[in-house]
Amino acid sequence: MTNIGFIGLGIMGGPMAANLVTAGHTVVGYDIDAGRRDRLVAAGGTAAGSLAEATDADVVITMLPDSPQVEEVVLGPDGVLEHAKPGLLLIDMSTIRPDTSRAVAAEAATRGVRALEAPVSGGEKGAIDAVLSIMVGGAEADFQAALPVLEALGKTIVHVGGPGAGQTVKAANQLVVGGTYALVAEAIVLLEASGVDPRGGLDVLAGGLAGSRILELKRASMVERQFAPGFRIDLHHKDMGIATAAAREAEVSLPVTALTAQLIAAARAQGYGALDHSALLKVIENLSGRTSA
Amino acid sequence: MTNIGFIGLGIMGGPMAANLVTAGHTVVGYDIDAGRRDRLVAAGGTAAGSLAEATDADVVITMLPDSPQVEEVVLGPDGVLEHAKPGLLLIDMSTIRPDTSRAVAAEAATRGVRALEAPVSGGEKGAIDAVLSIMVGGAEADFQAALPVLEALGKTIVHVGGPGAGQTVKAANQLVVGGTYALVAEAIVLLEASGVDPRGGLDVLAGGLAGSRILELKRASMVERQFAPGFRIDLHHKDMGIATAAAREAEVSLPVTALTAQLIAAARAQGYGALDHSALLKVIENLSGRTSA
Amino acid sequence: MTNIGFIGLGIMGGPMAANLVTAGHTVVGYDIDAGRRDRLVAAGGTAAGSLAEATDADVVITMLPDSPQVEEVVLGPDGVLEHAKPGLLLIDMSTIRPDTSRAVAAEAATRGVRALEAPVSGGEKGAIDAVLSIMVGGAEADFQAALPVLEALGKTIVHVGGPGAGQTVKAANQLVVGGTYALVAEAIVLLEASGVDPRGGLDVLAGGLAGSRILELKRASMVERQFAPGFRIDLHHKDMGIATAAAREAEVSLPVTALTAQLIAAARAQGYGALDHSALLKVIENLSGRTSA
Amino acid sequence: MTNIGFIGLGIMGGPMAANLVTAGHTVVGYDIDAGRRDRLVAAGGTAAGSLAEATDADVVITMLPDSPQVEEVVLGPDGVLEHAKPGLLLIDMSTIRPDTSRAVAAEAATRGVRALEAPVSGGEKGAIDAVLSIMVGGAEADFQAALPVLEALGKTIVHVGGPGAGQTVKAANQLVVGGTYALVAEAIVLLEASGVDPRGGLDVLAGGLAGSRILELKRASMVERQFAPGFRIDLHHKDMGIATAAAREAEVSLPVTALTAQLIAAARAQGYGALDHSALLKVIENLSGRTSA
Repeated sequence: MTNIGFIGLGIMGGPMAANLVTAGHTVVGYDIDAGRRDRLVAAGGTAAGSLAEATDADVVITMLPDSPQVEEVVLGPDGVLEHAKPGLLLIDMSTIRPDTSRAVAAEAATRGVRALEAPVSGGEKGAIDAVLSIMVGGAEADFQAALPVLEALGKTIVHVGGPGAGQTVKAANQLVVGGTYALVAEAIVLLEASGVDPRGGLDVLAGGLAGSRILELKRASMVERQFAPGFRIDLHHKDMGIATAAAREAEVSLPVTALTAQLIAAARAQGYGALDHSALLKVIENLSGRTSA
Repeated sequence: MTNIGFIGLGIMGGPMAANLVTAGHTVVGYDIDAGRRDRLVAAGGTAAGSLAEATDADVVITMLPDSPQVEEVVLGPDGVLEHAKPGLLLIDMSTIRPDTSRAVAAEAATRGVRALEAPVSGGEKGAIDAVLSIMVGGAEADFQAALPVLEALGKTIVHVGGPGAGQTVKAANQLVVGGTYALVAEAIVLLEASGVDPRGGLDVLAGGLAGSRILELKRASMVERQFAPGFRIDLHHKDMGIATAAAREAEVSLPVTALTAQLIAAARAQGYGALDHSALLKVIENLSGRTSA
Repeated sequence: MTNIGFIGLGIMGGPMAANLVTAGHTVVGYDIDAGRRDRLVAAGGTAAGSLAEATDADVVITMLPDSPQVEEVVLGPDGVLEHAKPGLLLIDMSTIRPDTSRAVAAEAATRGVRALEAPVSGGEKGAIDAVLSIMVGGAEADFQAALPVLEALGKTIVHVGGPGAGQTVKAANQLVVGGTYALVAEAIVLLEASGVDPRGGLDVLAGGLAGSRILELKRASMVERQFAPGFRIDLHHKDMGIATAAAREAEVSLPVTALTAQLIAAARAQGYGALDHSALLKVIENLSGRTSA
Repeated sequence: MTNIGFIGLGIMGGPMAANLVTAGHTVVGYDIDAGRRDRLVAAGGTAAGSLAEATDADVVITMLPDSPQVEEVVLGPDGVLEHAKPGLLLIDMSTIRPDTSRAVAAEAATRGVRALEAPVSGGEKGAIDAVLSIMVGGAEADFQAALPVLEALGKTIVHVGGPGAGQTVKAANQLVVGGTYALVAEAIVLLEASGVDPRGGLDVLAGGLAGSRILELKRASMVERQFAPGFRIDLHHKDMGIATAAAREAEVSLPVTALTAQLIAAARAQGYGALDHSALLKVIENLSGRTSA
C-alpha cells in the first residue's frame, strides 16, 4: 500500500481519490474547496491543510482543470516541485498541453522527482466506476512503479511513450471523437432534411465501415435530441484547444481538426456548453436552418 | 426462382450476377463488354444480345458506374423503361444521386414498372462473398417482392424509406467513412510528428469512445502505409460528389463533409486514385510536409 | 447596326436588351413571360412569338438562369441550334458551368454556328447602366465580331480564352467574392465580440494590404446590417455550385472555396436567400451565437 | 523632443529607432544583440547597457517578437514595469495576443505607468520608410501624448479603442490578408488547371467586386511564382496563431480563419517559411498535385 497525496478533488479527482482509499492506499487529499476535502474524509481519506502537506507522500497525483493550473500548482513558487522530496513519484492526470507536460517532466528531473503524465478518458462515470482509460507518458520504470496505483483507477492503462506522449494521445483521441460527432451530426441532418427516418439509416451505418463507438452508443440519443451529459461541450472545447495547440507545436496541418474545433467553439458560443458533446448536432442543424426545439 | 435480367457485369455486377445463378435464379446478363458477358456464361448464366433482351424478365437489376449511365441505360430512348413490360420489378443497385433515383421511380410509375433503388456497401469482396449491405429505397410491397432476390446478394438488407432514401443513406455512409479516414489520418500525423509511436496510441483510441470499424480494420495498414485496395479513392471521390450534391438538393450545410470531399479530391489529383481510400493519409502527411516513401 | 435576337428578358436580360435598342440595334426578344416581352416592346424592341422567330437574326444573345435552361433553350430539340442558320453568332451571356459552355461550343461548331460564352458581373445595376464586366470565351475572330454588340452592354470586355474560359473566370470571380465576404464577416464578428468598434478597425483594414473593393463598398452597410440587394444570396449560392463543379471538373482541390460554398448554402437555408450576399455576415454571427435583430 | 527608450532593435525595431533619431528625439536603445545596438549608435542613438537603463526615459517603446517576450521583458521580474518610474508612457508596438496587451495595461495601471499597444502593418519596408499603419489601443489621453512620437514612424495612425483593441484590429487585418491570399491562390489554380491563362482572368477579377490590394500588388508575382519576401510565411503563421487565440478568447467561431491558419501552417511545414506569404499558392497547387518548379 502506498502513501498518496492527491491534489484536485473535483468531479473527476473526488471519486478517483475515493477509489484509491477503497483499494487500501493511504490518501491525503488537498483542494481549495473545503466541501471537497470533507467528502474525501467521509470516504476514508485525510484532508491536508495545505498543498505542501499533501506533497509529503510517496506518490503525488494531480488532477487539475488545465495547463495554467498545473503550471501554478506543480511548477509555481509554492508548488509541488518546490515542496517535493527527491524520489517522489508525481503523476499528473490532468488533460493539458503536451508542452506543459514536457516542461513539468524537465523541471522534475532537475529536482530528482520522477514525473509521469497520465491523462484519462471515460468521464465522471469512468472515474466513479474505476474503469478509466489511462494514457501514460514518461519513463518505463516510473510507469511500472505507478501501475499498482493506477490499477485502482482504470481498466485500460497504456504506456504510450516519453514525456508529452500521453497528452498527445489524449489530444488525438479528442480530435477523433469531436470530428466523429460532427460527421454523425452531418449525416443525421442530411437524412432528416431529405425526408429519411434517421433511425433505419443510422442502423445501417452503425453496422458497416461507417460504424463507431459513437454511433453505437449515441445515435439513439442524438436523434431524440437527448443531450444530458456525459462529457460537456465546455470540456471538449478545452480539449480541442489542446489538440490545435499540439498540432501547432508539432508543426503539422490538421484541417478537419481545426474546422471541428470551430464547430465546437460555436456550440459553446450558442449556449450549449453544459450539454453533452453530442450536442454538436445542434450546431449543424442551426447552420442548416433546421432548429429543433 | 425468378427470371432476372442483369445489366452491368463489372467488378461488382459480375460476381453479383454469378451469385444469383448459384442461388438458383435464371439470369440473363448484359454488358457492352463481351468478356464480361462470357464470364457470366461460364458461371452458368445466359448472355443477352441487347439491353432489350435483358429487359425481358420478371426482375431487372442494374449495376452501373454513375448517374449519367443510369440516365442513359434506364431512362434513355433505348433504355430499360422503354422496353419494360408493365409489372416489371426494376432494382437499380448503382450508387447514384438521390434525385436521379427519384426521377427513375417517377418515370417507372408512369409506365407501370415497380422501381426500387438498392445501393450497396461492402466492396468487391462483399459482392463476391454475397455479404453486401443493401440500402433499399422504394415502396414496402416492392421491397418485400425483391427480398428473395436480394438475399442472394447481401447479409444486411434494410428498407430505409421511399424513392431516394436508399441513395441518401448510402451518401451518409460514405461521408462518415471518408471523414473518419481524414480524422484517423490527422491523428496519425499528429502522433508521428510529435515523436509518439502511433501503434500504441491508436490502440488506446480504438478501445475507447474514438473507436470505429476503420480504426479496428485499418489502423495497422495505415501506419505501415499499405494502401492496396479495398475501395479505391477514385470511387470514394465519386461518392463524395454524390454526398455534396445530395446536401445541396436537401438545402443543408455540411462543412466537414465538404472539406473531406476536397481532401479526397486532393488524393485523386495527387495521383492516389487507384489506392485504397485509407490513402487519404498521404494527403494529410503531404500537407504537413511529412511525405513518406 | 445588327439584327439581334435576345432570349431571356429577366432582371438582367430585360435592361440589357433595352440598352441594345438604345444603341441602335434591331432587337427581337423572346421570353416565356408575356409581361417581359411587353417591356421590351415599350423600350422600342419587337416581341418574338416563338424561340424560333427570335433565332432568325444575325446575332442571338441568351441570358438564362442556369445550365439546365441553356441545355434546353440552346441544345434542346426545339432550341436555338435547331433553328439557327449557319453563320449565326450565338452569344450566351448566362452564368453556367464551364463544361456546359464547352458542350454548346462543340455542338454549335457541328452546325456552322459561331458560339461565344460571355458571362457578366456587375448585377442588375450594371445591366441597367450598361457598365457590366464581360468575360468572353471563344474564338478571337468571333470575339471581334461580337465586340460592337457587347460594347452596348458593358464597360470592361475581356477575351479570356477559348470555350469555357469565360465561365471559369466568372467562377473564379465568384469564389473570390464569396470568400472575401466570409473573411470580412469573420473580422467584424471578431472585432464586435472583442468589444472593438468595427468602424475604426475596418477603416484601417480598408487602407492597407487587407483592402478590397468589398471593404470599400460594403463595410459600412455590413456593420449596420443593411442587406438590401444588390446581388442575392440565392444567386451566389448558384454560382458557388458552378465554382465547385468547375473545380471538380478541373480536378483541383479548393478547400476555402468549398467551405465558403457551405457557408453561403447555410445563409440560404437560414432564410437569407433574398438578401444581399453580404448577409453572409449573419451566418457567421449566428454561428457565434451573436444573433443581431 | 522626447527622451525615448527603445527595446528590441531587430528588423522592424532597428529602422524605427533610427527614424526616431532622425525626427530629433533622444533615443537610448537596448537589444540583447550587440551588433544591433551598434547600428543604433551609428544612426545617432545611444546604446543602453541594460534593460533598466533603457527604461529610464519619458517614453519606452518595445518591439518584440511575440507574447512570451513581452511577458518577460515588460512584466518579468527584471522587466520594464519593475524599473519604470510612475508617469512613464509605455508603447508596446509588438504584434501579440490581445489578452497579453490587456494584462500589460492592467499591470501598468497598478504602477502608475500609462500603457498603449500599437502594433503595426507595412513590414520592413514600411518601417524603413516610416510609413507604417499603426493600430493603437489604450486611453485617448495617452494616445494623444504618443502621437508626436508615433508620427515619426507611420503614416496612418488610428486609435481603435481601449487596451487590446489595437491587437484585435491587427489580428483581423491578418486573417483577412491570409484568407485573401488563399482565395487568390485557389482562383489561380482553378484557372490554370482549366487551361485558362490566369493573367487575363485575374485582370478581370482585379477590376471588379473581387478586386483587392493583394490582387493589385501581387497577382503578377504570384502567377510568375516570385515569392521573395515581403512578409514571410513564418511571421504570418505567428499572426494566425494570434488571430485564432483572439477568436477563442472572444468566444466566436471563425471557420474560414481556422482553415486559412492550417493552410499557412502547411506552407511552413512544407518548407516555405522564409518565402513571402503569397507562397500560400504553393500549398494549394501541391494539394491539387500541380507542383510548380
